[in-house]
Amino acid sequence: MPRNVAQKLIADHLVDGTMTPGEEIAIRIDQTLTQDATGTLVMQELEALDLDRTRADVSVQYVDHNLLQADERNAEDHAFLRSACRRYGLWYSKPGNGVSHPTHMQRFGVPGASMVGSDSHTPAAGSLGMLAIGVGGLDVATAITGEPMYVRMPEIWGVRLTGELPPWVSAKDVILEMLRRHTVSGAVNRIIEYHGPGLAKLSAMDRHVIANMGAELGATTTVFPSDDAVRRFLRTEGREQDFVEIAADEDAQYDVTDEIDLSTLVPLIAKPSAPDNVVEVREVAGTPLGQAIIGSSANPGLRDFAIAAAMVRGKQTAGGVSFDINPTSREIFADLTKMGGTFDLVSAGARIHQAGCMGCIGMGQAPAVGHNSLRTFPRNFPGRSGTREDSVWLCSPETAAASALKGVITDPRDLGMEEPALALPEHATINPDTLEEPPPPEVSRRAELTKGPNISALPDFPPLPDRIEAPVLLKVGDDVSTDEISPAGAAALPYRSNIPALAEFTFTRIDPDYPARARETAGGSGHVIVGGRNYGQGSSREHAAITPRHLGLRMVIAVSFARIHWQNLANFGILPVEFTDPEDYARIDADDTLVVEDLRRPLGEPDARLRVRNATKDQRYEVRHTLSQRQRDAVLAGGKIPLLAQRSATVS
Amino acid sequence: MPRNVAQKLIADHLVDGTMTPGEEIAIRIDQTLTQDATGTLVMQELEALDLDRTRADVSVQYVDHNLLQADERNAEDHAFLRSACRRYGLWYSKPGNGVSHPTHMQRFGVPGASMVGSDSHTPAAGSLGMLAIGVGGLDVATAITGEPMYVRMPEIWGVRLTGELPPWVSAKDVILEMLRRHTVSGAVNRIIEYHGPGLAKLSAMDRHVIANMGAELGATTTVFPSDDAVRRFLRTEGREQDFVEIAADEDAQYDVTDEIDLSTLVPLIAKPSAPDNVVEVREVAGTPLGQAIIGSSANPGLRDFAIAAAMVRGKQTAGGVSFDINPTSREIFADLTKMGGTFDLVSAGARIHQAGCMGCIGMGQAPAVGHNSLRTFPRNFPGRSGTREDSVWLCSPETAAASALKGVITDPRDLGMEEPALALPEHATINPDTLEEPPPPEVSRRAELTKGPNISALPDFPPLPDRIEAPVLLKVGDDVSTDEISPAGAAALPYRSNIPALAEFTFTRIDPDYPARARETAGGSGHVIVGGRNYGQGSSREHAAITPRHLGLRMVIAVSFARIHWQNLANFGILPVEFTDPEDYARIDADDTLVVEDLRRPLGEPDARLRVRNATKDQRYEVRHTLSQRQRDAVLAGGKIPLLAQRSATVS
Repeated sequence: MPRNVAQKLIADHLVDGTMTPGEEIAIRIDQTLTQDATGTLVMQELEALDLDRTRADVSVQYVDHNLLQADERNAEDHAFLRSACRRYGLWYSKPGNGVSHPTHMQRFGVPGASMVGSDSHTPAAGSLGMLAIGVGGLDVATAITGEPMYVRMPEIWGVRLTGELPPWVSAKDVILEMLRRHTVSGAVNRIIEYHGPGLAKLSAMDRHVIANMGAELGATTTVFPSDDAVRRFLRTEGREQDFVEIAADEDAQYDVTDEIDLSTLVPLIAKPSAPDNVVEVREVAGTPLGQAIIGSSANPGLRDFAIAAAMVRGKQTAGGVSFDINPTSREIFADLTKMGGTFDLVSAGARIHQAGCMGCIGMGQAPAVGHNSLRTFPRNFPGRSGTREDSVWLCSPETAAASALKGVITDPRDLGMEEPALALPEHATINPDTLEEPPPPEVSRRAELTKGPNISALPDFPPLPDRIEAPVLLKVGDDVSTDEISPAGAAALPYRSNIPALAEFTFTRIDPDYPARARETAGGSGHVIVGGRNYGQGSSREHAAITPRHLGLRMVIAVSFARIHWQNLANFGILPVEFTDPEDYARIDADDTLVVEDLRRPLGEPDARLRVRNATKDQRYEVRHTLSQRQRDAVLAGGKIPLLAQRSATVS
Repeated sequence: MPRNVAQKLIADHLVDGTMTPGEEIAIRIDQTLTQDATGTLVMQELEALDLDRTRADVSVQYVDHNLLQADERNAEDHAFLRSACRRYGLWYSKPGNGVSHPTHMQRFGVPGASMVGSDSHTPAAGSLGMLAIGVGGLDVATAITGEPMYVRMPEIWGVRLTGELPPWVSAKDVILEMLRRHTVSGAVNRIIEYHGPGLAKLSAMDRHVIANMGAELGATTTVFPSDDAVRRFLRTEGREQDFVEIAADEDAQYDVTDEIDLSTLVPLIAKPSAPDNVVEVREVAGTPLGQAIIGSSANPGLRDFAIAAAMVRGKQTAGGVSFDINPTSREIFADLTKMGGTFDLVSAGARIHQAGCMGCIGMGQAPAVGHNSLRTFPRNFPGRSGTREDSVWLCSPETAAASALKGVITDPRDLGMEEPALALPEHATINPDTLEEPPPPEVSRRAELTKGPNISALPDFPPLPDRIEAPVLLKVGDDVSTDEISPAGAAALPYRSNIPALAEFTFTRIDPDYPARARETAGGSGHVIVGGRNYGQGSSREHAAITPRHLGLRMVIAVSFARIHWQNLANFGILPVEFTDPEDYARIDADDTLVVEDLRRPLGEPDARLRVRNATKDQRYEVRHTLSQRQRDAVLAGGKIPLLAQRSATVS
């Protein structure tokens, strides 16, 4: 039977199960990626699992999130991560090396390999024909120990690209078009596979832009074929020997299909405060601007910076606009500098920041209230910028640079200039020494972990009780993101290694009193949260499960869940269930008391239905779970770590 | 009578008084400098004083401190400052343009001009033969309104330089030698004037390094002659027409003298945690390192970055060291990039940050506890880095780069390489458009202030009561800095426009309970602080007077005061007095109750003595003030702003 690229990649790594959409399958994992905001917990988990050395082909720990160092905690995390890399055999990428996704693509990406990463934008590696999935940290830790990854076989969504992008329209506009058409939950339980003649003119880094923001559609991942564009990319990176061709078989079929004629696209922009709130730039042209930022894993390529530099060369950006440039990798920064782009940007009034995620993860660059901020980032969820009541827009580098020049939102086609031609280097500036290779096992085994006072131990979590009688502490709407559950940003991120301290930030953007009210329930049978559709979208951070669990959360009833967060809830012993009848969502109110009796038995059996009684309103609802046996075992045990600990106790 | 350079500069601007050391003189002010951390208050003061337009020749507002933007407050301050510049006729230098001192020197510095700045490193402009004095913000506001500056005529301290610096020794080592010899209070009530044949090989930017850190000696200011080196500098900046020669008369005399033979100097380093804790680098060579930073107004020159870039070219800095580069002005960043230095630094593993003060003011770059940090900064007061129990060392760029390469503190002479020869550009990259010129008066008058929710109004301060009966809420030791009184750093700095919020940080590094205990006294007759020698050294921030005053501080009794803080105390209605007998310092304890009767009468008269009764210990002390009539009037009125308000009420 002819196969598409996604099916080939899965078949090559299939350890268990059959490739029928909806069935659980097990996949062998070749590479792992962690960044510092999620990685400190992963390293603590490796310690709890008593790992000797990573069993993946390549495991890399990046430091790209917590770079501000407002106090000693960030640098303490960096030292801890470096020591854990030495201990467990991981590569270490130090602060200033850049964002994990482009750096990984440049240095370690291999067509045909599988990867899990504790970052929701891990699918960016699909640009090279990799099968790369964003998961919670504990799932990365599990992969590092050599276990396969379990996932429900997604549908494969073939998006055929035809035509060629017109001048001033670039890869970002392609993914914004996808979001405009399909919304932030349009690709849930799907792998997006791009194919067709329109691929020919999209470079590997253009494909990175598109694969990266597949996360914003809710996709399990995005894949591209490995073709000449990938070969050219690897040659530029001095790794042509890593190239293998991967193409869909002729007559390959897709479960779902769509088509985009690239020649019909125009510059697009996502309005505040959702990535799918997309309109044509011309519709909002003239809107005044306080900030424009170029960077992040959603526009990481050298060409993304080079086009902006060429546009502002010899000109001056508007006085009231902060024009921020966040280089995405050390290599790209070096090449941009060599090309003269850094000089052009500095001369035109830009602020050049250190290479890393920066404002994309709320580490600085917060705009003033009432000032519009245009960003080439993947997300504009409310408050993610660090500013309450922010007004953040997502667009291409061309639109950001044009708007910075004019001081108002501007379609680059209306600048009155030709799109500049770019001469990108054929060979990138490669500094193999800036990443630290792990020492050999005999040295690793003697390495010690460097733990400063802010590196806490993981809290203990008791098993699931047989009966829950608990209040609905929060009822939230659709598309609540993990940014709203456990905020990132400069205030909270320094506590990512310190769960009790971090817990004080949980849900505070929605309800500042949640931590205090929740803590009161933690001693008893906890509390419940009721959510709408796509609950837990966005970042992969498992802190969004651990911190509410630490505060007593035992069950989330939602209309539907975002995949990574759903998995994280189960991993940390919180029961995620969905309304059988979505209409029941409207019948529950905050502060209602819900009762679930005889909870453990149905979780031990294939029956997926549970009855919930609303003691306040004297109503009954049916809810169901879609947990696998492995996940049910974890929930019953209080989470995956207690489960693994139980098992190793049984064995010994 | 022959005059030295300092005397000529003062004589040229003398409005009132005679140039006898210790006598109060009034000086006409040509230029004013404000930065954002102190400038927001200055703009609020201009508003309170109902200014129409600055009366100085040049007034410039820089944004170089609050650049992290962890939340909306920083950007809100920037927008407020820009609007105030438009309203009051000041130049506005936006974020990313760089540190005030080198930027001002490059764009506005004029030999022979006088300047006040609300930043303690304002004397850096003495490198161009300017008379530049750091003062509190209210004194800058007063200068902007066209009033002369009142200061006690300092002694002139002639430091004769002979010989030539040996390889690997640079300007920073000269000022560290001064600190080694004379300590942080060695130049109190003095102007340091460098002269002699050793000047010939010191560029204007080298002199900036030395003049800048004269602040660390406690000097009123530092001056250099305006000679060929200054002419060369102005030519490079495209402003040779601004050059005027200023030299000391033959046989000019100095009140105090010293001499340094430059050829005898070696690389020096200030150990934690005081700028005068200076030893030879070789004495501490081999000490392990977690961080090395190059930047700040204490080593701002293109050559300071270029030498480091040349040293690391083609090499890799040590894996465990964060090698941070803080460009100091947009122009220098552009020139360094054009020279290839930015490329060399990025390639060698450096983190390039936006142009500004950054870690020097505790805005990020905080090291981990237990990790040594080498910095080319001017100050290493405890905790200023943002890390409690930090370990910060001060050194030259050569020592910092050598140590970053080796991973341990390293004398650059021991690197085993020749000192690189540098080819600096003859003409700097000048972008006149990156600074915003104020609009003409008819436009200014219609400009409105942009005030976000974090811009508070100045609190009201009542007059000095006639009788104080108040507890000693704190007793502190020698050399307490304004960093300890009102911390900078990423947590506190966003509140610089919001006195009630900022007050909660007051003295918390010394006593976390001070704000709560102090607030209890604010309703009654307030409280007293007892200090040792050089009380209030360091940064010029007037917040170190305003915030304790807001919390009830009415009197500080110290063994001696640092000049700027002493002036700030009087400006905000706090009575600063010194022990007539310094032995009395040891007799008072914290929590003693002190009583001063009949307080207002002696302040109205030339008699400078007051009697203080210790009600707890039944002791009596004599204290004295050294306040001018103007200052006594301000203290009696509750501060300079109520005084000016009173006067304008009397007139109208």
